[in-house]
Amino acid sequence: MLKKSIKLSLWLTACAFAVQSIAAPLSIEEQGSFAVGGSVKTSEGVYAPLPDMAKGKESNNFVDVFNASIQAGGQTLHGDHATVFYQIPTNPRPYPLVFLHGAGQSMRTWQTTADGREGFQNIFLRYNFPVYLIDQPRRGQSGRSTVDAEVKATPDDQFWFAQFRIGTYPNFNQDVAFPQDKASLDQFFRQMTPNVGAFNAAVISDSIVKLFERTGNGVLVTHSQGGIVGWLVGMQSDKVKAIASFEPGNFPFPEGEVPPIITSKFGDIKPAVASKADFEKLTKIPIVIYFGDFIGDKPSDNQGEDQWRIRLNLAKQWADVVNKHGGNVEVVELPKVGIKGNTHFMMSDTNNVEVAAHLREWLKDKGLDK
Amino acid sequence: MLKKSIKLSLWLTACAFAVQSIAAPLSIEEQGSFAVGGSVKTSEGVYAPLPDMAKGKESNNFVDVFNASIQAGGQTLHGDHATVFYQIPTNPRPYPLVFLHGAGQSMRTWQTTADGREGFQNIFLRYNFPVYLIDQPRRGQSGRSTVDAEVKATPDDQFWFAQFRIGTYPNFNQDVAFPQDKASLDQFFRQMTPNVGAFNAAVISDSIVKLFERTGNGVLVTHSQGGIVGWLVGMQSDKVKAIASFEPGNFPFPEGEVPPIITSKFGDIKPAVASKADFEKLTKIPIVIYFGDFIGDKPSDNQGEDQWRIRLNLAKQWADVVNKHGGNVEVVELPKVGIKGNTHFMMSDTNNVEVAAHLREWLKDKGLDK
Repeated sequence: MLKKSIKLSLWLTACAFAVQSIAAPLSIEEQGSFAVGGSVKTSEGVYAPLPDMAKGKESNNFVDVFNASIQAGGQTLHGDHATVFYQIPTNPRPYPLVFLHGAGQSMRTWQTTADGREGFQNIFLRYNFPVYLIDQPRRGQSGRSTVDAEVKATPDDQFWFAQFRIGTYPNFNQDVAFPQDKASLDQFFRQMTPNVGAFNAAVISDSIVKLFERTGNGVLVTHSQGGIVGWLVGMQSDKVKAIASFEPGNFPFPEGEVPPIITSKFGDIKPAVASKADFEKLTKIPIVIYFGDFIGDKPSDNQGEDQWRIRLNLAKQWADVVNKHGGNVEVVELPKVGIKGNTHFMMSDTNNVEVAAHLREWLKDKGLDK
Repeated sequence: MLKKSIKLSLWLTACAFAVQSIAAPLSIEEQGSFAVGGSVKTSEGVYAPLPDMAKGKESNNFVDVFNASIQAGGQTLHGDHATVFYQIPTNPRPYPLVFLHGAGQSMRTWQTTADGREGFQNIFLRYNFPVYLIDQPRRGQSGRSTVDAEVKATPDDQFWFAQFRIGTYPNFNQDVAFPQDKASLDQFFRQMTPNVGAFNAAVISDSIVKLFERTGNGVLVTHSQGGIVGWLVGMQSDKVKAIASFEPGNFPFPEGEVPPIITSKFGDIKPAVASKADFEKLTKIPIVIYFGDFIGDKPSDNQGEDQWRIRLNLAKQWADVVNKHGGNVEVVELPKVGIKGNTHFMMSDTNNVEVAAHLREWLKDKGLDK
């Protein structure tokens, strides 16, 4: 009990700005899960409840029966939907936050952090926002795809450790806001889960547009590769009243105003393109884009630094174009507002409560919390 | 408000035995997610933070850089873990319920039902049990596998519709406790998510044994294929104080007491075998096994009826053997206790509140609720 009190008081010191103490239970008015979007694939043939091969044999193998059944055809596959887990707190604010993960991730991105602290799911519930967490089509619990998938079990943790600006394995970036114990890194690596079927931004954005039809007006929060999808959703749904994007991978420029490719020895970035009409829609809502620490402005031999240097550069160019067209985009470089040490996973870094508080203030400034 | 009250009163009539009204918010003391178990696969070679091929090119492709990085090797893959989402209510009972899904499913099995009502997750939280929901290794959010996977997008909904005793597509079984509207069936089909890597009962049971090391003493609740894993966990962990299994797929008989194969034209069942020492462990804990409706005792041309006829038959044989050895196994055929119309998915059928209440009473009878 004493130990718990000490831990709690430290926590309270660290986040005196939090609306609700971590000690208080979460009061959840409603929670649940559902699938949204997707399509149906149908096989040719006529469904055979009792396949021929299964008749009158002395010994029968379940797998053979299954194969005979699917070969007879006339069956459906429901796939390419998103899976959503949602929680609505007591006394909810009107706009829910809809969270979309990045590459290789699932809704786990927003849940408990690698070192066992609360993620954005709980933090924003404590701020009284309804939260909707997505496993995008062909990822995680939405593994049922309409296209075949080959998933290779290829070791690549060290590549992502660098790409995500945690450090250069096995070394951590100096003063990085990432837990450095072995157990936490193990947990972090185990958040990864592969594509089951090719990544398809249109399929994903379609499912999220349909999610917003269900939730009504809300705020879309994206991370990394999910950022690209988020811009599509913002261009397709009039229910998206704001977008907060954590280090999005790319940005849609209007035809005729597309900047040149930005090079990086770790992979160039070719700016995305949207029609002028679609692009205009992103000028009508407030947008905030966050970038973390360890990002310079000159080419670097460090993978993470260089990969996010080019995206931060492009983010600034995009913000200028959107704002020139009457938009309202803010690019927040966290170190410049005093929040330091952040990796690509700001929502789960050791200072994620500070990052959340910044977003919460931004939502308040834009009138999105009432 | 009036509409809500009417809906509520209907619901209260339907489940007057529920401990807590659906109208009350859930009070959650703690909730979160984590990975547990798993292994690490390491590639040969030496990790190269800046792969050779990526140096000095005028244009660089991210995928090429990634491939060069993984070809250089010296990297790890953390895989084969389970992913767990847990919630601990205010004033929790001491034994948590740990829920393991069946084939083609994820923790979605235990969440919101296809027709949008509360699943066992919420129902047992309302009964004040801590709940732990698993995505087993190589399934759902635990898609990171140490073995390659090929996932075919093969339409097979109608096969499972039959196997799960919903009916013979497109016809529903008469008086089946399954919602018959199109939207609900769509949701049900979209709960399916494939194996990403071969099903491996030992890998899965290992992760759940480790989960029980974290939770301490608790009750394991399994479904279908998960039942097979559950017996392994019960034989391996002294923290498993009871097992409730919904239509498990097979049963481990002690060496020397294994009954013959039971045949079905839709796939025979070959009883599983355990060492006498392992088997003995399952005689030390209370076990309840549930079977639903539409199961006869004679061979049938109906897939679902016949597939669960042979398993119910084997369940009864197994209960006799365990009980002969001093065990405490009860096989509950729901129609015989007045709960009718159940498919293979009793936890989400339209009468799932009744099914949950039966399990809750069983837990109480066995002193597992305090």
